[in-house]
Amino acid sequence: MLINELLEELKNTKLIIKNDRLLLGLSGGSDSIALLFILKKLQTKIGFSLGLAHLNHALRGFASDKDERFVRKLAEKYQLPVFTKKVNIKEFAKEQRLSLEDGARRSRYDFFIDTANKNKFNKVALAHTQDDQVETVLLKLLRGSGLTGLCGMPQVRPLSENLKIIRPLLNLTKNELLTYCRENKLKWREDRSNQSSDFTRNRLRNKIIPLLKKINPGLNNTFIKMTTVLKEDDNFLTEKTVKLFKQVLQKRTPEGLRLDIKTLLKEPLTLQRRVVRYALELVQGDLTDVYLPFIDNFLENKLTTVKLGKNGKLHVSKEKL
Amino acid sequence: MLINELLEELKNTKLIIKNDRLLLGLSGGSDSIALLFILKKLQTKIGFSLGLAHLNHALRGFASDKDERFVRKLAEKYQLPVFTKKVNIKEFAKEQRLSLEDGARRSRYDFFIDTANKNKFNKVALAHTQDDQVETVLLKLLRGSGLTGLCGMPQVRPLSENLKIIRPLLNLTKNELLTYCRENKLKWREDRSNQSSDFTRNRLRNKIIPLLKKINPGLNNTFIKMTTVLKEDDNFLTEKTVKLFKQVLQKRTPEGLRLDIKTLLKEPLTLQRRVVRYALELVQGDLTDVYLPFIDNFLENKLTTVKLGKNGKLHVSKEKL
Repeated sequence: MLINELLEELKNTKLIIKNDRLLLGLSGGSDSIALLFILKKLQTKIGFSLGLAHLNHALRGFASDKDERFVRKLAEKYQLPVFTKKVNIKEFAKEQRLSLEDGARRSRYDFFIDTANKNKFNKVALAHTQDDQVETVLLKLLRGSGLTGLCGMPQVRPLSENLKIIRPLLNLTKNELLTYCRENKLKWREDRSNQSSDFTRNRLRNKIIPLLKKINPGLNNTFIKMTTVLKEDDNFLTEKTVKLFKQVLQKRTPEGLRLDIKTLLKEPLTLQRRVVRYALELVQGDLTDVYLPFIDNFLENKLTTVKLGKNGKLHVSKEKL
Repeated sequence: MLINELLEELKNTKLIIKNDRLLLGLSGGSDSIALLFILKKLQTKIGFSLGLAHLNHALRGFASDKDERFVRKLAEKYQLPVFTKKVNIKEFAKEQRLSLEDGARRSRYDFFIDTANKNKFNKVALAHTQDDQVETVLLKLLRGSGLTGLCGMPQVRPLSENLKIIRPLLNLTKNELLTYCRENKLKWREDRSNQSSDFTRNRLRNKIIPLLKKINPGLNNTFIKMTTVLKEDDNFLTEKTVKLFKQVLQKRTPEGLRLDIKTLLKEPLTLQRRVVRYALELVQGDLTDVYLPFIDNFLENKLTTVKLGKNGKLHVSKEKL
């Protein structure tokens, strides 16, 4: 896909519309720098406002601080509001019992969303590419995933009534963006951790995906087509899930909710599981610690009630609400 | 899983029942040799009859003929009926425009099914293992696949009212079967083509899967769990598809069928696609040459009629039936 096609598409799909307040997650790498300049081009066609957010991971010492300064200078040059924060990812990941990579991602998203909410941005734009999508699907697969995970990152993820995450570059490859940067003489920062094999994602990127591409050189397109088709299946199942959830929801209070488990158990297994997962997510706000055995235990023991315990953990039971 | 557990499971799940007439596809490798002796054990608990089928692929010259003689001798020793056939796979694959591996698989299945039908067997047992399943899912993924493909090989696949393919070893690893063969001092034939990197599957087996297992040593279990969950989704969608197909089927003759496309187009996209795919498979007998663009073309042009042309190819149109 060419950049001009992308600009056309962005105008047509209304991923970004007039008067949007867009917060761009800018690492300073070639992908996000390309997105910055693509958005600035789009701004001349659609009027929207733009801010930059950069999380300093402090993982690479001086280099991390240089990245931050690079982003600050860009913001100054183009007179864009900029938000930065320095986080000790190693400590955060240890605290949250996450891998370094998961910890980094979590704090990045937390920071972007928090900044957007505080400063009344209505969309967070992230520079994920087709290559990132392929890696994400493979990672999901490697770690075990249901259908939703295999669909990869969505182009639009609504977080609340006032905030969405959007990914305008999902149909472009890293190579296309690199070419764009070079042709337009844009400067970017190399992330050396991208090129090491320290992280699982980098191992996929540098070792495994090249081997897979020897078997299927069109791997990217194959994956994009696959996720599009799977997404249709997942959307249909989600629709059915929400409908059934409303049918079996007996009571909902600020403490939690209660399901008509008898009726639920008459439905196909996948809908049973999806309704319970949906209920758990609704009460907890996310799906932390929600795995299949937890869901199946709920169903097998014919539980009815989901509450948030005082420790902030999900509490499931047959208790009244 | 241990072999004794497997025997228990086979008794409980009724994968094999009394008076079954079982045709075992026997390559002579450790997997199928293990299955032969597991089945012989099971025979003492459940009364069923057993025959052997071996396709000589003639791909490895003398070694292929030795494999065939090995199977014949086993059959003689245990007084089991044996069916063998020699096929020039290279020619067959060229004719059918298939890769060598796809050609080999196709002729093997054709031979097993044909032999079973002619000799009144009601089940064909194949020795696919957990490792084969992981490879199959990865292959599907690499070549592009919908949800059904990502579910991998089913443990039971009904082919007609009188014949099923069953895979009793899908929950065991190759290693467990090898151990079983060694402990019971069984002899088997090494397939050297298993150890070469000539075929895509072998490249996965010998290069890529070991790398993936460095990231997730429990890859096999992760995949088995994933396929089980995806299967639930797929079953639900298939049920909805068959129901909708019956609703929109306007006419069916020996030549083909006609759909109420107007009604179909009101349904969610995934069901539209699945109903058309189902119709095409029903008319053609299989899904050869049925890809997503073919299906989407049917829907986009609001076609109604599926026939089998004189050239044996699918013919879709708005014609009357």
